[in-house]
Amino acid sequence: MTQRPYRIDGLQYANWSEKIFRQMREGELDAVHVTIAYHETFRETVLNFEKWNRWFERHPDLIFQGFSASDVERARKTNRTAVFFGFQNPSPIEDDIGLVEILHRLGARFMQLTYNNQSLLATGCYEEDDTGLTRMGREVVAEMNRVGLVVDMSHSAERSTLEAIEHSRRPIAITHANPEVWHPALRNKSDTLIKALSDTGGMFGFSLYPHHLKNKSKCSLEEFCTMIARTAELAGVDCLGIGSDLCQDQPDSVVEWMRVGRWTKTIDYGEGSASDAGFPPMPGWFNDNRDFPTLEKGLREAGFSAEDVAKLTGGNWLRFFKESFGPEKL
Amino acid sequence: MTQRPYRIDGLQYANWSEKIFRQMREGELDAVHVTIAYHETFRETVLNFEKWNRWFERHPDLIFQGFSASDVERARKTNRTAVFFGFQNPSPIEDDIGLVEILHRLGARFMQLTYNNQSLLATGCYEEDDTGLTRMGREVVAEMNRVGLVVDMSHSAERSTLEAIEHSRRPIAITHANPEVWHPALRNKSDTLIKALSDTGGMFGFSLYPHHLKNKSKCSLEEFCTMIARTAELAGVDCLGIGSDLCQDQPDSVVEWMRVGRWTKTIDYGEGSASDAGFPPMPGWFNDNRDFPTLEKGLREAGFSAEDVAKLTGGNWLRFFKESFGPEKL
Repeated sequence: MTQRPYRIDGLQYANWSEKIFRQMREGELDAVHVTIAYHETFRETVLNFEKWNRWFERHPDLIFQGFSASDVERARKTNRTAVFFGFQNPSPIEDDIGLVEILHRLGARFMQLTYNNQSLLATGCYEEDDTGLTRMGREVVAEMNRVGLVVDMSHSAERSTLEAIEHSRRPIAITHANPEVWHPALRNKSDTLIKALSDTGGMFGFSLYPHHLKNKSKCSLEEFCTMIARTAELAGVDCLGIGSDLCQDQPDSVVEWMRVGRWTKTIDYGEGSASDAGFPPMPGWFNDNRDFPTLEKGLREAGFSAEDVAKLTGGNWLRFFKESFGPEKL
Repeated sequence: MTQRPYRIDGLQYANWSEKIFRQMREGELDAVHVTIAYHETFRETVLNFEKWNRWFERHPDLIFQGFSASDVERARKTNRTAVFFGFQNPSPIEDDIGLVEILHRLGARFMQLTYNNQSLLATGCYEEDDTGLTRMGREVVAEMNRVGLVVDMSHSAERSTLEAIEHSRRPIAITHANPEVWHPALRNKSDTLIKALSDTGGMFGFSLYPHHLKNKSKCSLEEFCTMIARTAELAGVDCLGIGSDLCQDQPDSVVEWMRVGRWTKTIDYGEGSASDAGFPPMPGWFNDNRDFPTLEKGLREAGFSAEDVAKLTGGNWLRFFKESFGPEKL
């Protein structure tokens, strides 16, 4: 009897509930990287860890906190989902490099160096000028490498991302984005960048967030999977995974918080617009965690072998987790 | 060849330096419970974790952070000292019970419910009225039990301590104090209390801080060890250990911080006095971590068997660590 492939989602930010935890089990999701901070300070981020601790305590039959790749295997064996934490912005470390190790100890496994704007560490993809890694940025990347906190450049600008790839002693990730040649959003990535990521052992997670999709909410499963096939031709299949960016059940006030945080007093529509300010509707074939089998079917139909589908839907992330979450081997 | 006994110190608060870490190796101390907060808020306590992370990074040949009892065995095998963290006050959890699990994850293994004064959780030994565990105190003790954070009542008042013993589902500790019948300091403990602790599997660590000693700095090794022998007759040897309360190399400004924190604008001399405001000099036979063999010799001369000395100087703490630092088994 062949085992089903590992299923790992490289990013979600749902309005978490028992309903969603049960849907993750129905979809047989072994692990998920969950965003627990956008603009939060250290203390606010700790409150988010606390909120998750309550969920882990209440639903030990469905979820538990993941710290290492072996937790993905444990999740699968015990029919649960291992939840790994990450930040979309470096705000949780404030101006204190010592918080990198503290937050890694608490279980942070991914941290974006920027979220759209300039940060203390690097430049975001919405800034006009991209000045690359800052002085503190270089120090923090080295510290992240040391402890095993993955550099994520999903919302960063191109030069900053290329410099992060070059400066980092360990492979980095773009957990959720798509190729810019397929859909030219500011958040999507150039082939140069995807190639540089692949050449250094990094990971690229394909996003299902409609603003990152060609034809947005109307993007078909076939279009999405054909785009993945084209990217695999460019960069090889081993660096590719899914980072659905699923924001299930979130009210529109949350997408405003994601975009605006506390950095402006006016409204910034990000990838939306005044007439389309809220969360866009998901494509009909991917609404929640029960739709991973549909995605796998689409990948087979786009010509991927069963082996490659297994890599794309979890195997590659699992390998990357193994290589990335522990202390650096010197 | 017989192995030397395990050496574990149940409490120190030194002005840490490479010199002291080397003295711990000279004294072959396998593990030490180190105070990292007196009056610190959560964020300030995290800064103290960060400071220790720097020491662990700089001196991996001498020290490492201890999380479980197996780290004591690992320390011994690798000729290093495992450092376990604790708080003398519940100030690090502020008013937030969720911080109990967060701080345990970071490595906190002991927390006093009070430091001399009334806290949100219980009454300190210097208050006039002792009202026992507060409503929050009962909740926090249950949460500490759940995650494996040891309740320490060294600076608490009698009723509060008896209630903590009764309410706690797991054995508690008095990491550093002496019997009040031997030296009637407010910080020392009644025989009733020591007996109640022993009857419930708790631990009592004998203090070498001069204000807790008969004749203070002039207390002889023989007097100290005879007192231990008398306590062993009262409560049995299995609940007893050392909690030296060594405050090596600290300037007197630190004892003022310990006593005064931010809770008063005037001076409180604690166990000292206006004419004796600073740290008292240690007894000549116990100045630093190299003096543990002297203490062991004193215990043998007071009539303890080699086996009992091994329990007193580390074996009992090791057993207690094994039973106490992991999640509660339900």
